[in-house]
Amino acid sequence: MNGVRVAVVGVTGAVGQTTLRILEERKFPVRELRAFASERSVGKTVTFQGERVRVEKVAPGAFTGVDIAFFSAGSAQSREYAPQAVKAGAVVVDKSSAFRMDPTVPLVVPEINAHAVKGHRGIVACPNCTTIVTVMPLKPLHDAGRLRRVIATSFQAVSGAGVNGVEELRSQTLAWARGEALTPKYFLHQIAFNVIPHIDTFGESGYTGEEMKLVHEVRKILELPDLAVSPTTVRVPVFTAHSIAVNAETASKVSAASAREAFARFPGLRLWDDPADNRYPMPVAVEGQDDCFVGRIREDLSLANGLNFWVVGDQLRKGAALNGVQIAELLIR
Amino acid sequence: MNGVRVAVVGVTGAVGQTTLRILEERKFPVRELRAFASERSVGKTVTFQGERVRVEKVAPGAFTGVDIAFFSAGSAQSREYAPQAVKAGAVVVDKSSAFRMDPTVPLVVPEINAHAVKGHRGIVACPNCTTIVTVMPLKPLHDAGRLRRVIATSFQAVSGAGVNGVEELRSQTLAWARGEALTPKYFLHQIAFNVIPHIDTFGESGYTGEEMKLVHEVRKILELPDLAVSPTTVRVPVFTAHSIAVNAETASKVSAASAREAFARFPGLRLWDDPADNRYPMPVAVEGQDDCFVGRIREDLSLANGLNFWVVGDQLRKGAALNGVQIAELLIR
Repeated sequence: MNGVRVAVVGVTGAVGQTTLRILEERKFPVRELRAFASERSVGKTVTFQGERVRVEKVAPGAFTGVDIAFFSAGSAQSREYAPQAVKAGAVVVDKSSAFRMDPTVPLVVPEINAHAVKGHRGIVACPNCTTIVTVMPLKPLHDAGRLRRVIATSFQAVSGAGVNGVEELRSQTLAWARGEALTPKYFLHQIAFNVIPHIDTFGESGYTGEEMKLVHEVRKILELPDLAVSPTTVRVPVFTAHSIAVNAETASKVSAASAREAFARFPGLRLWDDPADNRYPMPVAVEGQDDCFVGRIREDLSLANGLNFWVVGDQLRKGAALNGVQIAELLIR
Repeated sequence: MNGVRVAVVGVTGAVGQTTLRILEERKFPVRELRAFASERSVGKTVTFQGERVRVEKVAPGAFTGVDIAFFSAGSAQSREYAPQAVKAGAVVVDKSSAFRMDPTVPLVVPEINAHAVKGHRGIVACPNCTTIVTVMPLKPLHDAGRLRRVIATSFQAVSGAGVNGVEELRSQTLAWARGEALTPKYFLHQIAFNVIPHIDTFGESGYTGEEMKLVHEVRKILELPDLAVSPTTVRVPVFTAHSIAVNAETASKVSAASAREAFARFPGLRLWDDPADNRYPMPVAVEGQDDCFVGRIREDLSLANGLNFWVVGDQLRKGAALNGVQIAELLIR
């Protein structure tokens, strides 16, 4: 019995589609693929390894015989169907926020805390896209100088809001080109030629859900429950990759040169930091790439043990689908 | 002899044009207007108070009889012609970076340090656009709790790069709508659907000129020569208004409620901070407005005396032309 029986729930979405492509690219040993989506996609097909696979609705018994189920259909769907998949014997790799902060569920970025996968009880959670891109350079920096405080300001692409977000930027921009009015439909405000400092819903402290995810998830992944994190998350009119400006304070001084070395050595992270050549990461250059890219590394002028840097990652790849497939690779190892 | 004889140098540029509009709007007592620009604009006309004014080149004797000369033609032009204008008896309001850090030249944001104008020796400098928008809320916050450290991350509109920057975003976006390739001409990299963490040239410490302007100018305006400032400046595909995410540390605690009161009371600053109503400042809402708008005010989760907020200002108005006209109003008072 060679190979893994895989299910993808939310297969028609941006993350679901990217998951199929990454399973192919990385030659994940898929023996059988089951493709699940919502009612309105039933009857459609998706393409996997050159073959057409019919899209099904999740029904009783849907997960029978499935080894690994990737969930990227949203939190409500994960809450409803993931326990069902676990009961049927599958391990769930969940891209939603449903179980991330559950203390019995590992929250995993394989380059950082692969060991945490071992303790799973049927579900392994994949962090929020902005968390993943931000935490990738924080890990080697913590190992170099022990993190004390992180101030993160994000520039998030519309793909983070799914296919609807991408369509909204596209259609508003085309309307602008035709000289027509730009009407917000999916986002609360115009996104073309604008920036919106509001992602997810507001909580009582004035922080958004997206901002609090960054705080709690970074702490859990790094196993630093008391790490001081100050987040600001902003939507920008970019299609795919997320950028984050990070100011980090460490217990011991990490020079810009040492940070560059530490970043360059870290798997999944690449250094683009050559001001003389106008080279630094940007969304259009990083889109479609698996690694996260870090640049603009400079010592903080305002604090002895401070460091500023800029990290960019494709939110559909390392920020979502790739990280999920990497977790699955750990599971079958 | 009623009224002021005014010259505008760089009259055909975005800031020059906006200066004319603001002189009209604020009924600045212009008795005579002289319009200067580079060789290639000579012979064109500009409209002021319903009349056409011929554009001239700066020639010997150009500033004879001029009371106030607004300069927005770039640093090289200011360096060359401003001393000539001063010699001819004019007071120069300079929008370029040429004289900002000259200790004999006041650097003025009228709501903050109007008193500094008094010491001028013929030139009053207007700060960088990002500095102005950032420093507006910093002043009332400093008065409330004494500033210790400021971490500022900017989202800067293309208008900050002048007419060429605006044209580049426009033409790249139209090319995208036609399905054509996007070729950078003015910016170093594609600006449509991208963000570029690089404005002005890089210095030795890894910071850009734009970032160091923010550090030095904020210190000079607030008269806090040792204030700790950590800057990151980023160009975003927005046409006109600049946004800045600010994390500020104060010597004594300033609650979110106190900060809101202090911001709301400060002239030139307006509060848009109502998460329940999805209300916060954004570039498309602030474009064309004179005031700077502040929102997303929340206490820092990572530091007892920390505060996060988000400020947006029209870079052509308060960020440039309006601030210049306000300085001129101080000069004629």
